Amino acid sequence: MSLPTLAWTGDAATGHLVLLDQTRLPLEVHHRDCRRLEDVVESIRSLRVRGAPAIGVTAAYGVVIGLQPFREMPREDFDRQLAEVTATLADSRPTAVNLTWALARSTRCADDRKELDSASVHDRLLEEAAAIQDEDRNTCQAIGRHGAELMPRGAGVLTHCNAGRLATAGSGTALAVLFAAADLGREIEVYVDETRPLLQGARLTTWELTRHGIPTTLICDSMAAWAMQQGRVQAVITGADRIAANGDAANKIGTYALAVLARQHSVPFYIAAPRSTFDFSLACGNEIPIEERDGEEITRGFGRQTAPDGVGTWNPAFDVTPAELITALVTERGVIEPVSGQRISEVLGTDGDG
Amino acid sequence: MSLPTLAWTGDAATGHLVLLDQTRLPLEVHHRDCRRLEDVVESIRSLRVRGAPAIGVTAAYGVVIGLQPFREMPREDFDRQLAEVTATLADSRPTAVNLTWALARSTRCADDRKELDSASVHDRLLEEAAAIQDEDRNTCQAIGRHGAELMPRGAGVLTHCNAGRLATAGSGTALAVLFAAADLGREIEVYVDETRPLLQGARLTTWELTRHGIPTTLICDSMAAWAMQQGRVQAVITGADRIAANGDAANKIGTYALAVLARQHSVPFYIAAPRSTFDFSLACGNEIPIEERDGEEITRGFGRQTAPDGVGTWNPAFDVTPAELITALVTERGVIEPVSGQRISEVLGTDGDG
Repeated sequence: MSLPTLAWTGDAATGHLVLLDQTRLPLEVHHRDCRRLEDVVESIRSLRVRGAPAIGVTAAYGVVIGLQPFREMPREDFDRQLAEVTATLADSRPTAVNLTWALARSTRCADDRKELDSASVHDRLLEEAAAIQDEDRNTCQAIGRHGAELMPRGAGVLTHCNAGRLATAGSGTALAVLFAAADLGREIEVYVDETRPLLQGARLTTWELTRHGIPTTLICDSMAAWAMQQGRVQAVITGADRIAANGDAANKIGTYALAVLARQHSVPFYIAAPRSTFDFSLACGNEIPIEERDGEEITRGFGRQTAPDGVGTWNPAFDVTPAELITALVTERGVIEPVSGQRISEVLGTDGDG
Repeated sequence: MSLPTLAWTGDAATGHLVLLDQTRLPLEVHHRDCRRLEDVVESIRSLRVRGAPAIGVTAAYGVVIGLQPFREMPREDFDRQLAEVTATLADSRPTAVNLTWALARSTRCADDRKELDSASVHDRLLEEAAAIQDEDRNTCQAIGRHGAELMPRGAGVLTHCNAGRLATAGSGTALAVLFAAADLGREIEVYVDETRPLLQGARLTTWELTRHGIPTTLICDSMAAWAMQQGRVQAVITGADRIAANGDAANKIGTYALAVLARQHSVPFYIAAPRSTFDFSLACGNEIPIEERDGEEITRGFGRQTAPDGVGTWNPAFDVTPAELITALVTERGVIEPVSGQRISEVLGTDGDG
C-alpha cells in the first residue's frame, strides 16, 4: 500500500490526517494535509475523500482534529465541543451511513470514559479512529474472500463508481471482490461505468484495476445495457452507501438502472458492503436521505462548460435499489442470499456493534 | 430559422454548403464553409453535422460539391466520378441509413437523365438535393403534428441525444413532436439525457428546447431510471438512425437502456423518424451495422484526460431497440402502433420512394 487513501501522522495532540486527493486522480497523485476541522469537512464535501467506509474513517480522525484545541479544557466543555464537532462532520454528506456510524463510535468512546480527563479521552479518540481504520482493512479482506466465490470464470463483470481501495481503508468492497477473484485465477474482465457526473469509474476504478493487472474496459454509463444485451457481462457488483433493514440499498446514481437492466438480462446483481453500511433504524429504502448536488457538476463537470447558460438540472447523487433486485449482499460476515430483512439480521445481527 | 443547420449558397457550378458546426455548440455559433468533398466527409465523420436526416441532406449536397470539378467532362466520365463520390460519402458513417438513401436518390436522378450532358445533370443534382431538404422540412412538420397527440399534459417527457432542428433540415423528429406539443399548450417539461460520450443532449437539445421556451431539465444518462422511478417521466421519445423492416430501431447508444427501463416503469416509449430512416432491406435489427468510435471520445471527451493512460475502452455509437419495446413509431405518414412489420408496411409502403 504505497499510496494509502488516508493516513494519520503524529500523536493526538498535534498530529494530522493525510488524504490522497481523489479529485486530482488519475493524472496527479497529490496528498492533502488536513490540520483543521474545516479541511476535513471540505475534503468530504468536495469528494477529495469519498466512499462510505473511507468517509467513516475520515470522520473519526476528523473528530480528533476538531478537538485538538480543547485538550486542556475541563471535561464538561470538551464534551460540549465533541458534540459540536460531530454535528459539523455529520452534516458534511447526508447519505453515507458510515459517517454517522463512525461519529457515534467516537461519541460512545468518550461517553464510556467519563472518569478520564480531556487529554486522555482525546488520546483514546485517536486510538478509536485507528481501530475503525484497522477493522475496515480486515472487513475489506473478508468481503473479498466471501464475494470471490460468486464471480464467474473467464467472464465479464460490470462495476459502477468506485468501491475500491480509494473508498475504504483497505482493499475496497466491490473491488475487493474483484481483486480476490483475480487472485483466485478467475480471469475476469471488468467493465467499468465511467459514472457521471464525477467520473469515479473512469478516474478511480480503472486506475485501481489496471494497477492490479486486471483487464479493464471503460464504458459510458449509457452503454451498460447494450453490453449486457451483447452478452459481455455475466455479473454486476457495486458498493453501497446505506442499506436499510430490509436490504434496499442506496448507492451512486445509476446503480438502480443497472439493477433493473441486470434483472431483464438475467445477470446476477451483487452489492458488497460492510456491516457498518447497514442502517437498521430504517425499515426500507424510502427513508434513506438522497443528497442532491450542484447542477454545475453536470454542466461544467470537466473544467469546461458543456451546456447552455441557465439550463435547469437535476443532480441526485444516489439512488435506491430495492432488495428484490439484489441477487445477494456480500458482507464481511458472509453472503446474504436471498436478500431479506430476516436473512440480514440472521447474518449480521441487528443491534450494537455486532 | 435564423440559424439553419445547413444551407446551400450559389449555383451548382461554384456554390458551396454552409454548415452550423455542432461540435462548437452551445458556446459558439460558428458556420463552416464546405467547398471540397473532403470538407463534407470530415464534417460528417467528426459530427460537425449529425442526425440521420441532416446527414442525408448533407450527403446530397456533398455529391454536388464532389462533382464540381467534372462538369465539363464527357458524361461517361462524369458518371464514373459520381460513383466514386457517392462511395466516399457512403463510407463516412455506417449506421444512418438516410445517408445511403440520399445517395441512391442522387444516383437515380443522374441515371434517369442519361440524355443530358454533365453540366445539366450536375444542375439537376443540386435541384434534387434541394428537394430532399425541402421534403425533410415538410416531413418534420408532419411528424410533429402526428406525435404531439401522443404527448402527456403537464407532465415530464424524457429525450436522449438530439433529434431536433440540428439533426434535420426542419424542426426535427423527436423534438418536432415536443415543439408541436408545447405549441398545443400541453405544458410538458422535458428531461434531457446529456448523452455521453459526445453530449449531444447537454450541448444541442437543451439549447434548442430553451430557445423554444420549453422547461428543460438536464440530467446524466445514469439518472433516467431514477427519474422514472420517482414519477418524473410520463413518456420517452427519441429519434432513430435506422429502422429495420420489423421495427427494430438503431439509435444513439443509451436508447436501448431507456426502452428497457421505460417498459419496467410502465412509461410509453416512442421513436419519431421519417420514412427515409426505414431500411426495408433488413429483416431485423441484428443486421444493422453498429459504428464503433474512438475510445478517446470517452477518455478525453471534454478537452481533458479523464481516465488513466492505456485503459481499454468500448465505444459503440449506437444500440438497437427491439420493436417489442417500442410503444409506437411516429412518422410523417402517421403513428404506427403497435409496432410490427405488417403495420409498418401498411402505413409506409415498402418499396420505392413511397
